[in-house]
Amino acid sequence: MWQLYQFPLCPFSRKVRLAMSEKGIPYELVRENPWDRREGFMDLNHAGRTPVLHDPDKGLTLSDSRAICEYLEETGDKNPLIVGTAPARAEIRRLVAMFDEDFYANVTAPLLHERMMKRLVLRQSPDSKALRQAMKLAHDYLDYVDHLIDYRAWLGGVTMSLADLAAAAQISVADYLGGLDWNGHEQAQGWYSVFKSRPSFRPLLTERMDVIQPPSHYADVNA
Amino acid sequence: MWQLYQFPLCPFSRKVRLAMSEKGIPYELVRENPWDRREGFMDLNHAGRTPVLHDPDKGLTLSDSRAICEYLEETGDKNPLIVGTAPARAEIRRLVAMFDEDFYANVTAPLLHERMMKRLVLRQSPDSKALRQAMKLAHDYLDYVDHLIDYRAWLGGVTMSLADLAAAAQISVADYLGGLDWNGHEQAQGWYSVFKSRPSFRPLLTERMDVIQPPSHYADVNA
Repeated sequence: MWQLYQFPLCPFSRKVRLAMSEKGIPYELVRENPWDRREGFMDLNHAGRTPVLHDPDKGLTLSDSRAICEYLEETGDKNPLIVGTAPARAEIRRLVAMFDEDFYANVTAPLLHERMMKRLVLRQSPDSKALRQAMKLAHDYLDYVDHLIDYRAWLGGVTMSLADLAAAAQISVADYLGGLDWNGHEQAQGWYSVFKSRPSFRPLLTERMDVIQPPSHYADVNA
Repeated sequence: MWQLYQFPLCPFSRKVRLAMSEKGIPYELVRENPWDRREGFMDLNHAGRTPVLHDPDKGLTLSDSRAICEYLEETGDKNPLIVGTAPARAEIRRLVAMFDEDFYANVTAPLLHERMMKRLVLRQSPDSKALRQAMKLAHDYLDYVDHLIDYRAWLGGVTMSLADLAAAAQISVADYLGGLDWNGHEQAQGWYSVFKSRPSFRPLLTERMDVIQPPSHYADVNA
């Protein structure tokens, strides 16, 4: 069986978990804190980042969350997540990149640094200016989700796609860390609430990252 | 015909140009400085980043360099660049991500900031400490290329792939900006020298970024 090396608030691992669940591919979780730079983990992945997907029976190790998702897409036989014409598939991949790179760099990464790394590893207080800046930028991305949902059923088009999984993965980590103010984002909230109800998403919402607690609305599918 | 919005030292535009040339897909260049945040460009790409690939006749606009390369791979009919079994394709995509994300963040982006943005836009002197750190990390990546070339013909496996294009795109920008010391990296140098001789690469090597001049070895295919 696949082993997924991850930690509960890794947004890229969340995207892979959602993709595997939606595709019905079984896996077991292996907890890995990439900041420990454990030797055995560095051997699996030169870049030292989660997620890593490892099959000990086949001797197969995959890393980089987008490479993993493309692999699952090519080898899985149900519920394709990169669908449609070539331009439609390019649009899905554009949105995946936007959430994996831009949303992560501007929102998720600073929140993880201020509210997770400083608490668990660095033993420092969060910088309120950095938090305010991340929350301000999060607001702009939620505006963009509102805009997409104004004329599409799902972020990437008429069906659920990897774009929704990538967005929900980043947004759920930002929400866990108290970085999102949903006021005034009814379309985004409606889309996210539907997504939260999916069987693939429920296990993620019940997990906790060590001593860090999410706000009360975090796991509430009606919020 | 495709129009590619780019500037000469954008490593992601270089990767797309190399892919289009290798696949024999014609395109014309449109010079775009993304830091100007020109309104017409922002309309084409919400993220405001190069490259953007635009076909005015078809009304089609693609952005994000990996999404563009996957599109070219799906629609082009010659010289596939993501080849082999699913694990081999995952390995190619892992290396593309390593150069697009890690090499860029640690080497290309600081070099572009210190040696291009500070000269052309910010009118500041480069920070020698930041330059030294980027060059030190560049050394580690060239070590990794040496290691790969020790047991593979090309970075991703037995044939040239998108991994080579992504690596050469980043490395060529770092080399232009004087950020690479090739001493002691014979395998990497041998691989790069072969790549520099390809017809797809020659036009890139003759271009100049405004007043910024590359070191003398930059365009020399024997160096």
